Amino acid sequence: MVSYTLGEIASRVGGTVRGDAGLRVAGIKPLDQAGPDDLSFLAHPRYRRAATASRAAALIASEPEALPGRHLILVENPYAALASAMGLFFAPDQAAGGISPLAVIGEGTALGEGVSIGPLSVIGRRCVLAEKACLKPGVILGDEVRIGPGGVLHPGVVVYARSVLGARVTVHAGSVLGSDGFGYTEAGGAHAKIPQVGNVVIEDDVEIGACVTIDRATFGSTIVGRGAKIDNLVQVAHNVVIGEGSILVAQSGIAGSTQLGRAVILAGQSGAAGHLVLGERSIVGAKSAVLKDLAPGSFVLGHPAVDHRTWKRAQAALERLPELLHRVARLEKALQARAAAPARVRPPRRAAGGASVRAGAARTRGRRPA
Amino acid sequence: MVSYTLGEIASRVGGTVRGDAGLRVAGIKPLDQAGPDDLSFLAHPRYRRAATASRAAALIASEPEALPGRHLILVENPYAALASAMGLFFAPDQAAGGISPLAVIGEGTALGEGVSIGPLSVIGRRCVLAEKACLKPGVILGDEVRIGPGGVLHPGVVVYARSVLGARVTVHAGSVLGSDGFGYTEAGGAHAKIPQVGNVVIEDDVEIGACVTIDRATFGSTIVGRGAKIDNLVQVAHNVVIGEGSILVAQSGIAGSTQLGRAVILAGQSGAAGHLVLGERSIVGAKSAVLKDLAPGSFVLGHPAVDHRTWKRAQAALERLPELLHRVARLEKALQARAAAPARVRPPRRAAGGASVRAGAARTRGRRPA
Amino acid sequence: MVSYTLGEIASRVGGTVRGDAGLRVAGIKPLDQAGPDDLSFLAHPRYRRAATASRAAALIASEPEALPGRHLILVENPYAALASAMGLFFAPDQAAGGISPLAVIGEGTALGEGVSIGPLSVIGRRCVLAEKACLKPGVILGDEVRIGPGGVLHPGVVVYARSVLGARVTVHAGSVLGSDGFGYTEAGGAHAKIPQVGNVVIEDDVEIGACVTIDRATFGSTIVGRGAKIDNLVQVAHNVVIGEGSILVAQSGIAGSTQLGRAVILAGQSGAAGHLVLGERSIVGAKSAVLKDLAPGSFVLGHPAVDHRTWKRAQAALERLPELLHRVARLEKALQARAAAPARVRPPRRAAGGASVRAGAARTRGRRPA
Repeated sequence: MVSYTLGEIASRVGGTVRGDAGLRVAGIKPLDQAGPDDLSFLAHPRYRRAATASRAAALIASEPEALPGRHLILVENPYAALASAMGLFFAPDQAAGGISPLAVIGEGTALGEGVSIGPLSVIGRRCVLAEKACLKPGVILGDEVRIGPGGVLHPGVVVYARSVLGARVTVHAGSVLGSDGFGYTEAGGAHAKIPQVGNVVIEDDVEIGACVTIDRATFGSTIVGRGAKIDNLVQVAHNVVIGEGSILVAQSGIAGSTQLGRAVILAGQSGAAGHLVLGERSIVGAKSAVLKDLAPGSFVLGHPAVDHRTWKRAQAALERLPELLHRVARLEKALQARAAAPARVRPPRRAAGGASVRAGAARTRGRRPA
Repeated sequence: MVSYTLGEIASRVGGTVRGDAGLRVAGIKPLDQAGPDDLSFLAHPRYRRAATASRAAALIASEPEALPGRHLILVENPYAALASAMGLFFAPDQAAGGISPLAVIGEGTALGEGVSIGPLSVIGRRCVLAEKACLKPGVILGDEVRIGPGGVLHPGVVVYARSVLGARVTVHAGSVLGSDGFGYTEAGGAHAKIPQVGNVVIEDDVEIGACVTIDRATFGSTIVGRGAKIDNLVQVAHNVVIGEGSILVAQSGIAGSTQLGRAVILAGQSGAAGHLVLGERSIVGAKSAVLKDLAPGSFVLGHPAVDHRTWKRAQAALERLPELLHRVARLEKALQARAAAPARVRPPRRAAGGASVRAGAARTRGRRPA
Repeated sequence: MVSYTLGEIASRVGGTVRGDAGLRVAGIKPLDQAGPDDLSFLAHPRYRRAATASRAAALIASEPEALPGRHLILVENPYAALASAMGLFFAPDQAAGGISPLAVIGEGTALGEGVSIGPLSVIGRRCVLAEKACLKPGVILGDEVRIGPGGVLHPGVVVYARSVLGARVTVHAGSVLGSDGFGYTEAGGAHAKIPQVGNVVIEDDVEIGACVTIDRATFGSTIVGRGAKIDNLVQVAHNVVIGEGSILVAQSGIAGSTQLGRAVILAGQSGAAGHLVLGERSIVGAKSAVLKDLAPGSFVLGHPAVDHRTWKRAQAALERLPELLHRVARLEKALQARAAAPARVRPPRRAAGGASVRAGAARTRGRRPA
């Protein structure tokens, strides 16, 4: 069984050891599952108690004071250190290796060094698969598709003709890149299809989840910028441009021609209407619907999405609305009742519930002081 | 053509016959499509009139009084009886039978008795397919996947390495089990991937719809509990735990590490944020978004989801809000106008719209009774 | 390189030339990408400035006055003309042609003239593929599926047994037609499956996007009417009926047995509950949830969806709700304060905040003018 000293791990993750740098660990596990041979991690203050109780031999942590007497690898960002340390203990699943004799490869397709293609994959004509690209079983590429170096396409991924994927792009199973944009126009009482002759461009270091759909552009390219991360079941419509490093959480969707700046976040089940511009670093909260352009750095919530503080105030107020209706009704009654007193001066010209106000006025006249 | 007497059917479904137990029927159809050789069913009072008008030879029903003069199979739950009776008339689609010579099966994989594997399926290494497991064409399993006895995987299903499926699990076409969880951390200005080294565990008697995505855990397991039913296009994120018998309706989604107790219901297009606990038998209404833990037996609606009664009151009140704005404006005016009268006693210290109140007070002084 | 005169193009699209009818163009591009050999188009007033600046040789347009001095093809609907003209310049992707020797075709299946089937497709038994039907690689059909003339199924599409697709139906990659409806009933404390023995019927000229799920009916048929267009990741549940020419935008969903009339539009991420009737030409706005029947021609928004004007008024009012709470509190205070004055006549019987009103009344008595 492979094992590493805390010192070796600290040097890999850029941390420092507090305690015994020669102590060996043979695995990484969460706090409640780690045993006396394992390294674990404290990445959020919420888990301090679990860290104290953990049987782990040592911990990756950023708060030494919270863990007296424990062997620690101290780092600034425990999640980043964890991600790095896991590379020591968990080898990535091995590609099948080589080109399966059961793959179908079209004429004129070029394969770089170290490319692997799983059985029952179908590669179109004139495709280019750069070095170390890895297609798992059952991947289907149309004609003239380009896959960058180190790209990984999981089983069942479908890439339509002329799509371009950059270096180290990962696409999880069942996703579809480059299907036709949803464009029709009325013609003779029916929907006439507008041909979708553009393509999809996925830049370097993008990861795309399972069952994601990214449509080809009508003209030009639908673009997913460098380093963007897309979760499962996300919809990206034709001609959308997604800025570098943006994050689209599961089941979010972006309508046609909308542009996201750098590092935009769409939380789960959120959406953006078409032809909008979402400024860089803007955040759309879960289940929210953006219907207008967003300034850079915006944080919006709701449907329609508004500034998150406005939304929270409105939601809090909404809970008090039924009570407010009662309070206003009481005010109206009180004012009517009191309409008796100063009637000699001047009755209000308009008040709620005309009929009863008139009745009140009648009563008032009868009681007017002589 | 196969046919059964009402008596035979009643004994299968645990009901009693009212009318002719020897009457033969040759099929089951809905009320409006059933003919004089067919059995039909009355499962909801809404359809009483249709039941009266139906040409069916006999009916499965729970309300004899609503159907005078008809041959009936009386049961408590007509839907359950229907489900049971349908087994007599509709044979399940036959599996292709046997192991297709066009399937690719990895080294070290063990196949139980009666396993069937369709053509163009790819099974990884060291998998275990228990007796009578049935893989339709085009199913792809990673290495070390376990499929329990009687499991059925429809075409195009992808199961990543090390996933475990229990007995009688059914997965519909296009679903993806075990893809990487969506976990990144900031490192050097980019998103660094946190390796996802856990797996997915689907317990016995779970049914999963089409194009569903269930991510593997970062560590440990994402778990779908015994007897849970998942509709199409549902997202289950990494480390989620779904309690036994829970129901996730189409397009709902659950963010990472959230735990559902037993028999929880997520209605269509609803969602739950991450790291929550949804107590057993809690119900999340359609399109609602749960942002906080739910007590057992909760029934919540809205975004953010609140108690269903609170939500309904707030929605009803919301419709009256535009009118309420007018009523409050009227009250303010009325109060201003009346500020004329009691001014000699003491003017209100604070009132809406300072300037006009002061003007009113001025007018009041001019009109004061001598 | 192929090229056409403006006159030739005008006659194809049913327009008239303003300018040089003999001018040749060799491509069609958007305004900002078109060069001096290209035709472009002005389809929305928003792009007038871009049209003026465009280097295109000529434009398809409906507003001659906005484009002085340009060669134009004048039409009523530039989008429709564009769609038509694109057919001249962009040949559809060629089908692989013929029946791949690597396709698996079941017994009793009939293939019309000009049918093409890609490699690694699996066709069930007793299917019928009409003339010119085109199955891309990796398509899987169950038994007794019917594909109409000119139908196109993209890679990875799965069609369950007994589904019927009409003429010229296009289905994009990863979609699943005919999977089991989501029907269970309680039986002995568990969910008993109601067998789903109906099918799916897709009428002529329907286009279905990627990763769409359309469930088979419990009995009878789930029906998608003629000419309907369905975007990516849409859910259509069992026994739904979709009227002719309806449009379902991405990530929308329809629950079981709901019926849509002709030309209904469901915008992105919207949904309709089960057992409803949505009248013809009704429109459901983005992210909205229909919980009641809709009259023909309705336009609804929100959750629950209400008339779009009602929703907009309520949303506008909602933004003012926090301020309204303050205004009502001020009114209550003002009324209390003034409760001092007219006490000699008659105090209000009910007012907000009983205790403080009583205190006010007490104070009033002390100050009553002698």
